[in-house]
Amino acid sequence: MGEDTIAAIATGAGEGGIGIVRLSGAGALAVAERVFRPRRGLPLGRRRSHTVTYGWVQTPAGERVDEALALVMRAPHSYTGEDVVELQCHGGQLAVRRVLEQTLQAGARLAEPGEFTRRAFLNGRLDLSQAEAVVDLIRAKTDRAMAAAVAHLGGSLREAIGAIRARLLEMMAHVEADIDFPELELEVQTREEIAAGCDEALAAVDRLLGGARAGRILREGLRVVLAGRPNVGKSSLLNRLVRENRAIVTAVPGTTRDVIAEWVELGGVPVQLSDTAGIRDTDDPVEQIGVERTREALRQAHLVLVVVDCAAGLVPEDREWIRELPATASRIGVANKIDLNPAFPLSELAESLGGAPVVAVSAEQGTGIPALEAEIARHAGALDAGEELLVNARQAEAIGRAAAHLREAREALAQGVGVELVSIDLRAAWMALGEVTGETADDDLLDQIFSRFCIGK
Amino acid sequence: MGEDTIAAIATGAGEGGIGIVRLSGAGALAVAERVFRPRRGLPLGRRRSHTVTYGWVQTPAGERVDEALALVMRAPHSYTGEDVVELQCHGGQLAVRRVLEQTLQAGARLAEPGEFTRRAFLNGRLDLSQAEAVVDLIRAKTDRAMAAAVAHLGGSLREAIGAIRARLLEMMAHVEADIDFPELELEVQTREEIAAGCDEALAAVDRLLGGARAGRILREGLRVVLAGRPNVGKSSLLNRLVRENRAIVTAVPGTTRDVIAEWVELGGVPVQLSDTAGIRDTDDPVEQIGVERTREALRQAHLVLVVVDCAAGLVPEDREWIRELPATASRIGVANKIDLNPAFPLSELAESLGGAPVVAVSAEQGTGIPALEAEIARHAGALDAGEELLVNARQAEAIGRAAAHLREAREALAQGVGVELVSIDLRAAWMALGEVTGETADDDLLDQIFSRFCIGK
Repeated sequence: MGEDTIAAIATGAGEGGIGIVRLSGAGALAVAERVFRPRRGLPLGRRRSHTVTYGWVQTPAGERVDEALALVMRAPHSYTGEDVVELQCHGGQLAVRRVLEQTLQAGARLAEPGEFTRRAFLNGRLDLSQAEAVVDLIRAKTDRAMAAAVAHLGGSLREAIGAIRARLLEMMAHVEADIDFPELELEVQTREEIAAGCDEALAAVDRLLGGARAGRILREGLRVVLAGRPNVGKSSLLNRLVRENRAIVTAVPGTTRDVIAEWVELGGVPVQLSDTAGIRDTDDPVEQIGVERTREALRQAHLVLVVVDCAAGLVPEDREWIRELPATASRIGVANKIDLNPAFPLSELAESLGGAPVVAVSAEQGTGIPALEAEIARHAGALDAGEELLVNARQAEAIGRAAAHLREAREALAQGVGVELVSIDLRAAWMALGEVTGETADDDLLDQIFSRFCIGK
Repeated sequence: MGEDTIAAIATGAGEGGIGIVRLSGAGALAVAERVFRPRRGLPLGRRRSHTVTYGWVQTPAGERVDEALALVMRAPHSYTGEDVVELQCHGGQLAVRRVLEQTLQAGARLAEPGEFTRRAFLNGRLDLSQAEAVVDLIRAKTDRAMAAAVAHLGGSLREAIGAIRARLLEMMAHVEADIDFPELELEVQTREEIAAGCDEALAAVDRLLGGARAGRILREGLRVVLAGRPNVGKSSLLNRLVRENRAIVTAVPGTTRDVIAEWVELGGVPVQLSDTAGIRDTDDPVEQIGVERTREALRQAHLVLVVVDCAAGLVPEDREWIRELPATASRIGVANKIDLNPAFPLSELAESLGGAPVVAVSAEQGTGIPALEAEIARHAGALDAGEELLVNARQAEAIGRAAAHLREAREALAQGVGVELVSIDLRAAWMALGEVTGETADDDLLDQIFSRFCIGK
């Protein structure tokens, strides 16, 4: 890899004014020259870097395939760090496919998903945290998710990790010196310094881990399920929440279709609102299926809106299904139709929910909705953390391993274990953090990360 | 229009590696400079034409929105003929939208559908036939449709029309001279020359009109309906045709969903194959709806495949529904299950279809399918005409008016009417042809044409 020239369609499917076929590799200019004929002037291979040339993509027989602009970006000043040519043609799907075919016939190979970015990583144009930010940016559903990805792309996580690793390296050097020259008897001083360094690194690492949950919610969305007995007003509430918030049209992957789900943006967080079948004991087989789906949705929920009907009061059936709620999901009590019964005892609902927050609303009239939205947004919470800290699951796992090693090192120091053993933990932490930025990542990890990418990126 | 700076997303919806926001207008560079910060070097406004600059799109507060490349193409050497800047950012939908928002806040206005191409037309960068080819190219479903669009884009129709108009202009000058200086008594010679010129122009115009039907089929597809009694094997035949030909995934707009329809490419032509409910007299209301839909499909068909079951023979019910076929559709007789009854009298089927071609097939075994495909492709026919002749409906209408005026001129000459009146017809033909290339098109016509475009083109 890195030797051959790769090609792919880099623009999204669907009708557009412009479609791009991207080439990268030592042969990119040679391939482009074979398929692209400038209207006038020098052939592409003799054009300067970062220039745009107008002309036509042609078949080897000289038949015109499409009008195009060719962008030449020479190594190392390109996205991949290799020679890159972009052929901008008219945005029709067929036109773009034909242009791609020409490049493949002229010697390029179809790129694998993420291969352009993988080459960029291998050539040191960006680190692994930045590469992952590219995907997060493409998939971002809200401004905050985008801002977090842009921060990573700018290198904020790279820098944070780099600072911790530099500190660990320094400590390791101290320890090694101590091991190599025991006669200098620096042991006591070294131990104190190393302990302080571990505490410092642990604090930094824990800060990063604090952003993991918020980061996941920003990327994957907060799954909120509306549940309650039949006719307590769940659908009206869902419609009201959708109507009053910015709808997210493109669904986050993995959306279940078993329940009615709508995506909205609440406080900068993508929120999936799922309506469910009313929960009640039933012998009707069709209704039973609905109830089973509701239970499944509840199991997967981050947050359950426990909807009750103030007009009916808090009835024994409400208490019953509330007792059955999975422990994994947080809850907000929603006392709907409060206009019909302003005297509804909110505290009783709160109590049945183990002290969860309760909001009184009227989905029909719109009262209480802003308070409910604020409560949901607060639940998404932890988002007040600095945006550069929003690490993803893979990064959190590696950082978590680093934290475990640092804690072991700390404990070993406290127990007076020899610094030789502490050194092993420090190195392991240093290695684990290196996986975040890719400095210590192996091919399997890279395969796994770049397979998430689309072709052409 | 033409004064302000327009902006739009120029790449298709859907996830992609690259998204483009395009700016055009006298203020394009100023707007781009406000939102784009080069990583180093000169601000965009001082960059040379046709250069690429790496940097970041930022908010006025300096917050990064996305990493981007900025392409500068200065007037008149750009798509629109105005200053154009393209901001290539990461392909996420939200990222591209945010970049667009920045340009709008920095003084650009959201472009209308086709406005970039409209400006290109108004600035003389392309004529109307080329502008329409841009849309045809984007929407092309087959290689031949694409080749036809590419030919138009290259100016082939523009040249053909231009040649006829130049000839007409020459004839008009002759006539005018004759009117202005009657004392020169050139009348007889002029009449002969004008008559010859009219014949020549008519022949050219008729050649263009000959390509109108083929052009429409290439763009809109050939609607083929499979019809027959229940259980004669229509579905098997449809499946066989779909399996053995390149399927077209993106449906041509306006597809009816009332019947099962599949798109395939046959001989370079997009063909819509529709299966229909079996035709028979019935009292069942659900079945009646199916039969009614079948009749509607038959009314809209370009071509009907009349499917009969060789094993059952040509039964009276077959003859009955064949008699009811709308006169508008061409037919091909398909004698299915020929393997079960090789002695089936094909000539009888041909006769019942008024001498239409008949093909014996076995959908199950695949025999006869290539012959049927060839017959369908031949029907799409007229495609052997030169590709530059494939005019669209609007162009055909204008060319048709030119033809009518030329015929009137020809007739007037034959009847010895004064050349003053002939002159009026020649001018009318010249004007009508000018609508094809846009030289005589008014704003309403332009509105109508460019409203077919997507935003960003």
